[in-house]
Amino acid sequence: MSRAQRLNAEEVAKRLNGLPGWRVNNDTLSREFTFPDFVHAFAFMSSVALVAEAMDHHPDWSNVYSSVRISLTTHDAGGLTELDFRLAEKINALYTR
Amino acid sequence: MSRAQRLNAEEVAKRLNGLPGWRVNNDTLSREFTFPDFVHAFAFMSSVALVAEAMDHHPDWSNVYSSVRISLTTHDAGGLTELDFRLAEKINALYTR
Amino acid sequence: MSRAQRLNAEEVAKRLNGLPGWRVNNDTLSREFTFPDFVHAFAFMSSVALVAEAMDHHPDWSNVYSSVRISLTTHDAGGLTELDFRLAEKINALYTR
Amino acid sequence: MSRAQRLNAEEVAKRLNGLPGWRVNNDTLSREFTFPDFVHAFAFMSSVALVAEAMDHHPDWSNVYSSVRISLTTHDAGGLTELDFRLAEKINALYTR
Repeated sequence: MSRAQRLNAEEVAKRLNGLPGWRVNNDTLSREFTFPDFVHAFAFMSSVALVAEAMDHHPDWSNVYSSVRISLTTHDAGGLTELDFRLAEKINALYTR
Repeated sequence: MSRAQRLNAEEVAKRLNGLPGWRVNNDTLSREFTFPDFVHAFAFMSSVALVAEAMDHHPDWSNVYSSVRISLTTHDAGGLTELDFRLAEKINALYTR
Repeated sequence: MSRAQRLNAEEVAKRLNGLPGWRVNNDTLSREFTFPDFVHAFAFMSSVALVAEAMDHHPDWSNVYSSVRISLTTHDAGGLTELDFRLAEKINALYTR
Repeated sequence: MSRAQRLNAEEVAKRLNGLPGWRVNNDTLSREFTFPDFVHAFAFMSSVALVAEAMDHHPDWSNVYSSVRISLTTHDAGGLTELDFRLAEKINALYTR
């Protein structure tokens, strides 16, 4: 009953190709983001939180001072889906502004 | 017992000169900020909130979708002080990144 | 082409009846929220921001230290709609937790 | 040149005693917090972010949906200091409101 279907290895590789900075490991899409300080890091996290809530697709993420690490997967599909790649693209757009 | 002394008209004019985008009206320093959308506007507000709390000097501010209006004054000094200009400078730095 | 239809006076009165703390004035639904300090006020604003973005329906709101004032209306319907009352209910739920 | 001195094992045990929910492991003070959903979890994170920035003492933390895990240590003191326990107390106050 998942909202999105698990992508196969070929589809993942293709999608990853157009997604700068992210890596795939163990059915997880992840990237680390760095900022000048905690204030900028947390402002970025706020923007990601809004986008994630609007998609109803939430990251597994951590922050230490000026660094934010984000991991994405679709638990109820047992792997990566379009949702993960769409959220990753939105996160990249928020980062590169 | 205020933490900062009220600036006189000459001092205000001088400080305002180095502060792009802000206006002074009725002992209040204000500026409007615009963004592509609500997500970017609120991320900016989060960064301003952190800086304001760290200074223990808080804005009077409002938001409508992609626009944020910020007004600063030092209530316990009865006008504008160094605190307002320092916070305004930090806000400009967060906006122009 | 609005997503929700404008409610008439009777419908507004009925919906308002089940919505503690809010008032209607000039086609706007509004309420003021108070907190112990700025930190709690801004945490509440963050929660409202997430809910608003997820609904794609955003408040006209302002904050001064520990007080948050929220006004809701549906601009493209020219008045109050179900969207405003649904967002107001979600905001009340976030406030009273 | 650290701002706070490392506490010894006895001092840590004494401070930990008055701090519900937190554990000490490898010079790190940590606790997991749970919420009804992501919106409440992120609102809590916003409040912690403000308090941390105001103290200039930042957590190592992670979030997965409705759960927030926070770890505190004072890197430049090489272990736990008063700063960690003061931040932990403030975080508890934000959680239990």
